[in-house]
Amino acid sequence: MNSIKIFAPATVANVSCGFDALGFAINAVGDEMIFTKTVDKGVTISKIEGAELTFDSRKNAASVVAWAMIDEAKPDFGIDMQLFKKVKPGSGLGSSASSSAGAAFGVNQLLGKPFSNLELTEFARLGEKAACGSPIADNVAAAIYGGFILVKSYEPLEIVKLPVPKELWVTVIHPQIEIKTEDARNAIHPTVTVANAVKQSANLAGLISGLYTDDYELISRSLEDVIAEPFRKKLIPHFDAIKTEGLKAGALGVGISGSGPTIFALSKGEKIAEKVAETMRNIYQNTAIDFNIHVSKVNLSGVDIINN
Amino acid sequence: MNSIKIFAPATVANVSCGFDALGFAINAVGDEMIFTKTVDKGVTISKIEGAELTFDSRKNAASVVAWAMIDEAKPDFGIDMQLFKKVKPGSGLGSSASSSAGAAFGVNQLLGKPFSNLELTEFARLGEKAACGSPIADNVAAAIYGGFILVKSYEPLEIVKLPVPKELWVTVIHPQIEIKTEDARNAIHPTVTVANAVKQSANLAGLISGLYTDDYELISRSLEDVIAEPFRKKLIPHFDAIKTEGLKAGALGVGISGSGPTIFALSKGEKIAEKVAETMRNIYQNTAIDFNIHVSKVNLSGVDIINN
Repeated sequence: MNSIKIFAPATVANVSCGFDALGFAINAVGDEMIFTKTVDKGVTISKIEGAELTFDSRKNAASVVAWAMIDEAKPDFGIDMQLFKKVKPGSGLGSSASSSAGAAFGVNQLLGKPFSNLELTEFARLGEKAACGSPIADNVAAAIYGGFILVKSYEPLEIVKLPVPKELWVTVIHPQIEIKTEDARNAIHPTVTVANAVKQSANLAGLISGLYTDDYELISRSLEDVIAEPFRKKLIPHFDAIKTEGLKAGALGVGISGSGPTIFALSKGEKIAEKVAETMRNIYQNTAIDFNIHVSKVNLSGVDIINN
Repeated sequence: MNSIKIFAPATVANVSCGFDALGFAINAVGDEMIFTKTVDKGVTISKIEGAELTFDSRKNAASVVAWAMIDEAKPDFGIDMQLFKKVKPGSGLGSSASSSAGAAFGVNQLLGKPFSNLELTEFARLGEKAACGSPIADNVAAAIYGGFILVKSYEPLEIVKLPVPKELWVTVIHPQIEIKTEDARNAIHPTVTVANAVKQSANLAGLISGLYTDDYELISRSLEDVIAEPFRKKLIPHFDAIKTEGLKAGALGVGISGSGPTIFALSKGEKIAEKVAETMRNIYQNTAIDFNIHVSKVNLSGVDIINN
């Protein structure tokens, strides 16, 4: 295999009660990337479309991942990367994670697949660190494993792949405003009451249980975030309206994707997910803010090879 | 049915990462109770063995539960209660919960089973309130439902019954010292860092996942409590030694049962649970503290009728 084209899904991290621990991948949006073996060793980037990112392969998040992998595997070839960016940077849909996970997967394929998914996640975290200063794992793990994942722990890194109920659909709206991850982080109080910690914990436990038992109502009752959302929602115009109307339209839950500004909703079935999209559209189309809406199944396979 | 004898299991609440949200019932210890229909209406207590508790049926935790149930169901008979207390008050094994859950179950039987398990849990919480001032649900729900339960929320009360891996065994050691629930509560900081809240949450999510997938290793790696144990363990002599040696002996996890002083260990299989019991015994028998040790399967049925 000398060249490979891949799809690296966008991801929703946090997922309300799963703050800093949960993530899932979506089918509707994702970066495309082409990796090609080169005679010259090292990593080059020959094309970037869709975003203004550096071509310096020692700085670009995705190629930082590629460098780390070839530094370890020491192949007798180099790798060129082409990046077709579809997940908008700063959207809250794991943009850097998508490219980083894509690079980990793609380079692993060209190397003959020496690395496990856990190792690929470790490599992809280096891209997260390059992009946003912190080697968070929730988005990259969701992109690599697909489906719902739990970041059980960081030291050592442990990822638990969770089951995905068959009729689970996602609606995401990306209002095109900028929220810096740093600002979103700073919005959150550094401490919480024990009562709220227990509430968040019990909700996450309920959500996990609902995923294992296909209990959509339990999933719905568990999608509540008492740690981040109360603070971060203030950074997202019309969040409360989107949430209220989304739930009225039948969504199981509505929350902030990653650190925002994208808002996600989970629904049982495509029909309700479309209806939720319509309510979101109705709210935002009367504003001056540009936005994108996507309706999608949860992505089950993670980063994958595409053949077109 | 004019009379019924029941077994009401002792329970382990909190379960490390499941602080204030998780509980399970055990087979080895439990209160026995006899409920008999009487011509005179109201609730009487004709016998209490094994503990010095009030015979005043308006104050005794178990009969408070019975009163609330007959006040609602208004049967044309009264109920007499005999209580053979085997779960020691103040042990941290849900002593008041055992009697309260037993009363809820037993009275429900004599009434012709009008109430659901969730309603029985609500009634039993009144016993907890009478006994310790707070209508906590984790112990009573574990005693009523059996197995592992999650208190998903309090308003409204929601209990999620969780699966129990077949080879899960419990070792409990009850050092006979007194820790007041109030002191145990006050030992805990009222706030936690967001980082620790996330850690606790992710561990609980890992434990729930392990219970659904029979993944004993994941259960083991998840049995970590960063909220209560670091403070409460100081109230329990030799806790650190019990934990260290218990883990060395092969326990999946060791933690504080309820608010202590009982320490529980979970193990895969009876053999390891017995070995853990031996290490616990070795540590405590060189001290001046009296203690009991029990090795048990997780109780799966909750409060149940006994026929002897």
